[in-house]
Amino acid sequence: MNSFGRLFRISIYGESHGSEVGILIDGCPSGLPLCESDFKPDLLRRQPGALGTTPRVEKDTLQIKSGVFDGTSTGAPILISITNGNTNSKHYESTLSIPRPGHADFTKKIKYEGHADWRGGGISSGRLTVALVAAGVVAKKTIPHIKIEARILEIGGQTDYQALLQQAINEQDSLGGIIECRVSGLEIGLGEPFFDSVESTISHLMFSIPGIKGIEFGDGFKAAQMRGSEFNDAIIDAHGRTATNHSGGINGGISNGNDILFRVVTRPTASIGLVQNSFNFETNKMEGHQIVGRHDACIALRVPVIVEALTAVALADFNLMRRTQ
Amino acid sequence: MNSFGRLFRISIYGESHGSEVGILIDGCPSGLPLCESDFKPDLLRRQPGALGTTPRVEKDTLQIKSGVFDGTSTGAPILISITNGNTNSKHYESTLSIPRPGHADFTKKIKYEGHADWRGGGISSGRLTVALVAAGVVAKKTIPHIKIEARILEIGGQTDYQALLQQAINEQDSLGGIIECRVSGLEIGLGEPFFDSVESTISHLMFSIPGIKGIEFGDGFKAAQMRGSEFNDAIIDAHGRTATNHSGGINGGISNGNDILFRVVTRPTASIGLVQNSFNFETNKMEGHQIVGRHDACIALRVPVIVEALTAVALADFNLMRRTQ
Amino acid sequence: MNSFGRLFRISIYGESHGSEVGILIDGCPSGLPLCESDFKPDLLRRQPGALGTTPRVEKDTLQIKSGVFDGTSTGAPILISITNGNTNSKHYESTLSIPRPGHADFTKKIKYEGHADWRGGGISSGRLTVALVAAGVVAKKTIPHIKIEARILEIGGQTDYQALLQQAINEQDSLGGIIECRVSGLEIGLGEPFFDSVESTISHLMFSIPGIKGIEFGDGFKAAQMRGSEFNDAIIDAHGRTATNHSGGINGGISNGNDILFRVVTRPTASIGLVQNSFNFETNKMEGHQIVGRHDACIALRVPVIVEALTAVALADFNLMRRTQ
Amino acid sequence: MNSFGRLFRISIYGESHGSEVGILIDGCPSGLPLCESDFKPDLLRRQPGALGTTPRVEKDTLQIKSGVFDGTSTGAPILISITNGNTNSKHYESTLSIPRPGHADFTKKIKYEGHADWRGGGISSGRLTVALVAAGVVAKKTIPHIKIEARILEIGGQTDYQALLQQAINEQDSLGGIIECRVSGLEIGLGEPFFDSVESTISHLMFSIPGIKGIEFGDGFKAAQMRGSEFNDAIIDAHGRTATNHSGGINGGISNGNDILFRVVTRPTASIGLVQNSFNFETNKMEGHQIVGRHDACIALRVPVIVEALTAVALADFNLMRRTQ
Repeated sequence: MNSFGRLFRISIYGESHGSEVGILIDGCPSGLPLCESDFKPDLLRRQPGALGTTPRVEKDTLQIKSGVFDGTSTGAPILISITNGNTNSKHYESTLSIPRPGHADFTKKIKYEGHADWRGGGISSGRLTVALVAAGVVAKKTIPHIKIEARILEIGGQTDYQALLQQAINEQDSLGGIIECRVSGLEIGLGEPFFDSVESTISHLMFSIPGIKGIEFGDGFKAAQMRGSEFNDAIIDAHGRTATNHSGGINGGISNGNDILFRVVTRPTASIGLVQNSFNFETNKMEGHQIVGRHDACIALRVPVIVEALTAVALADFNLMRRTQ
Repeated sequence: MNSFGRLFRISIYGESHGSEVGILIDGCPSGLPLCESDFKPDLLRRQPGALGTTPRVEKDTLQIKSGVFDGTSTGAPILISITNGNTNSKHYESTLSIPRPGHADFTKKIKYEGHADWRGGGISSGRLTVALVAAGVVAKKTIPHIKIEARILEIGGQTDYQALLQQAINEQDSLGGIIECRVSGLEIGLGEPFFDSVESTISHLMFSIPGIKGIEFGDGFKAAQMRGSEFNDAIIDAHGRTATNHSGGINGGISNGNDILFRVVTRPTASIGLVQNSFNFETNKMEGHQIVGRHDACIALRVPVIVEALTAVALADFNLMRRTQ
Repeated sequence: MNSFGRLFRISIYGESHGSEVGILIDGCPSGLPLCESDFKPDLLRRQPGALGTTPRVEKDTLQIKSGVFDGTSTGAPILISITNGNTNSKHYESTLSIPRPGHADFTKKIKYEGHADWRGGGISSGRLTVALVAAGVVAKKTIPHIKIEARILEIGGQTDYQALLQQAINEQDSLGGIIECRVSGLEIGLGEPFFDSVESTISHLMFSIPGIKGIEFGDGFKAAQMRGSEFNDAIIDAHGRTATNHSGGINGGISNGNDILFRVVTRPTASIGLVQNSFNFETNKMEGHQIVGRHDACIALRVPVIVEALTAVALADFNLMRRTQ
Repeated sequence: MNSFGRLFRISIYGESHGSEVGILIDGCPSGLPLCESDFKPDLLRRQPGALGTTPRVEKDTLQIKSGVFDGTSTGAPILISITNGNTNSKHYESTLSIPRPGHADFTKKIKYEGHADWRGGGISSGRLTVALVAAGVVAKKTIPHIKIEARILEIGGQTDYQALLQQAINEQDSLGGIIECRVSGLEIGLGEPFFDSVESTISHLMFSIPGIKGIEFGDGFKAAQMRGSEFNDAIIDAHGRTATNHSGGINGGISNGNDILFRVVTRPTASIGLVQNSFNFETNKMEGHQIVGRHDACIALRVPVIVEALTAVALADFNLMRRTQ
């Protein structure tokens, strides 16, 4: 339920306002150099600070609790924990009676019969993505020959979006965005023809990121308006290089050696300062309600490093699977 | 690798031009009425016949080999096999030396070191989707209270597309399309907050369908241009009903009781009659090549019942998982 | 539930008196020579015929339905089906009202709420072990360097047991036995320190064989009466060879390169001709009842090839896992 | 690899002389009362102190890091960590060059190519069983109606064994033992006919306990010398109660409602004070070597609570599985 992967397997735990969040990694091969400072660059990339990100800044103190000895992975499970801090739970208790629109407050209330941790969103918080980023750092180390790069393509429909962001902040509103990820240097033959296709596995992981509502590979939804004669990528050499890359580097679920290319969309942040209607379970009627707390005006700004991390997790697993075939 | 599901678990097998294709279903509860004629309606919906579909018509003779006794599921694994027929493999041997653009010929050649069954595309054939449809019939029976409906939204960018189809057929070309699926009547609380979110699981299965290149839930990619104040769905009553449904019936990965709504895009069929360039591994150079065989000009035409089937598989599994929480 | 294995994964299906039984093998590497006659020797070893075995003789007609092309495994799932025949179900209907002592009649009646296939024991029949033997044939092919040999150690407490067998048959009774299995030629490092220890995995599979009630590795239960100074195996060379082999070739759950050695015990066959007491759900009281049908007086006689098969399945999986470390 | 379970799923981590050991539990239902003091009784039972146990006494400071809120399980993953202390690693570095007989030093050296954590045995240490005991405490809470009791049956072949223990200690040697476990109050229908039989699952977990070399259910190995007429348990009433319990409460892999009964054997502790031969990889010859450190003269003394814990883990999982059938 909270684990993913066949051979390189990650399990997430923790709550937004609990003592820590973290990730348990099983199946990481032994002999990999790994230390706590390796995580800094990607953790920093995830941290807020830029215009449109939350003022809740975490120090992200990370500890490797197991599976690493003398600066090297041992082959045993690696537990990585990141301490929480700078939490302020008082604004969240009201979510029990007035579930926030666009949040998991209501679905979790029903699913867990009132027992879910509501502080800061509990397990359903963007805070847990710090653990995904940590998993990505380890995953990337197992596939040093593969380059994964995610970047913001557009925010609110615009590629130059600073003014739009400032406007959304001023209006206490939020914006959606699109992130593109490109993977290069990967070998031919990763992925399986059916349920473990490259697209299946990457999409499975991407939809684990809070706020992702769509994914497309290669030309994606544009393919609906294309003809086969346009879309098909001609193979031009014995290495399988193609003249174009409409399919996004994947044929029949299997990597073809060309760049893997995909895009994901993030919905506008659910938490906004504007008054919104929701059902109040205490008064038993719908009423206007204002969310207090510190939030990102646009989560797309912080998502690229998370997209990279989970792509690395998928490829680390495919890479190990490939050795068995 | 070729299995999916936690409790309602399907395993696919077979090749396009082998003796049969089929599905093994484990975890189907006992006591479900099930007989071979139950499969007819959905198998018929998948069969070609309409304009733009292949002239290879199969009789789809289906047999339940195990797990059903006296017209009722026993709780033991259910093996369903569908005989192949009307196969003509002679056109496919050339795919070994000249891999078809847009197909898995090249990726499988490398992955399986020349041992893959090339006849009719082997395991990577649309033929195997008949087994997925069969799995869907069983899955639907386990969740009779849930209604799943998929339909073609557009072909080649148009909602009225018959003329466009005829033109593509005349030009020996192919078209992509978009399919929309709506699920209603499902309870609140299906799906998990992280790796087994409703979106993760449904997308995983959708990308198992040959030719799917994108998926979006609710407003999907349009969300990139929306504001939180527009996108958030206001909860209007104690049952969690929402005034709008931009999120597609899912919050924090968990069903909220409103309709689940998603769209998938199918690429234009890879097999077209036009001459296309590809690398010839015998002559060791790129050259023009014409694909012979019988193909759909637009696979989107046959995909809706497959989308329904795999959605049912996902929900059958979630439904069993829900009983354990 | 009815599957086992991480990378070399088997799924069993079928019922004793259904049309067929079989096994679906996923994860078998491509390029393995495989044809239907490869199965004959081990299927023959499992067949009855000797003193103390059932007069129900099956032809065991086996077909490879998928995953093999031109005499070679393709990397796709391999479905192997074995036709049932020579079935006679009429004696079994009474097991619904009078569950046989020592059988699964009662437990399955409750578990599946009366829907289980009762003919010949349904899925809980020794008949299904033919599918396990078939899986073993494929598994053995993936580890040709490893030698697996199981043999009967004793029947009814005696190593020379023909007279005892004849006596049990004459008295319409049955006998238990002990089978020993030795594995040689396997490399160091198979198995995992905790939940996937060599012992865990082999024992898991052995207890899938109907009638197995115990397993011990190396000196096993005798170790309870030994001292550490006796039991510890001294390592005598750089290859890890040991002077003795009390531990059965496994240390800390991991193979140490010496022979793996284990023994399993089979209970005396549950089906005997003698009148036995059981509860009659129709008359609602305990009464004497006689089982009609054709049975083995001692299943231990037919178990060695099944023990070998499942040991091969375990090692085939470990062997693939080892490549990923 | 280091996880077990389908629905109630545990993942172990940590090393003997690392900062902590622990267990991650996924799938625990929400609404279960749980606090840190709940763990004390079983952790105390595992602690040394009695004659024949190690002088390394741990405080076993346990913390629940996630998944519990306001004293109740939330349905999210539960991470339980237990701090290590009182460690002294200096005696263990020699195990790299002179692997201890009966230990995993050699097998892990090869498997992990020299990268395993050798301090105190690393992951292959009895220390990690404290995490298993913690998992058992949570598991037991999910099945309050089931009673699980394990006890020492014999040590060194004797039921009154104090004098024998003292003698072994004096001689710097160690002893093996047998533990019996009885489970009562469980419902009919737990377990699956094939690979997830009750015996398969319990044995899988038992062989995860360091030092276990055999397991038998019901009459176990004695069954080899019994006749069917003796071994079969007559069903005496409509609840499935049986006159005898030779099968140990399991028929066809499924619980029959009578007590589950099994026994495991622990080998004599590998670490003894006596000089033993082993291969020295530095001098490249076999030589006598003495192990320094603090060890149990008989691990059987501390194993009962671990056997109970893992039995509870198995039953917690079966109990959730049962709800889905």
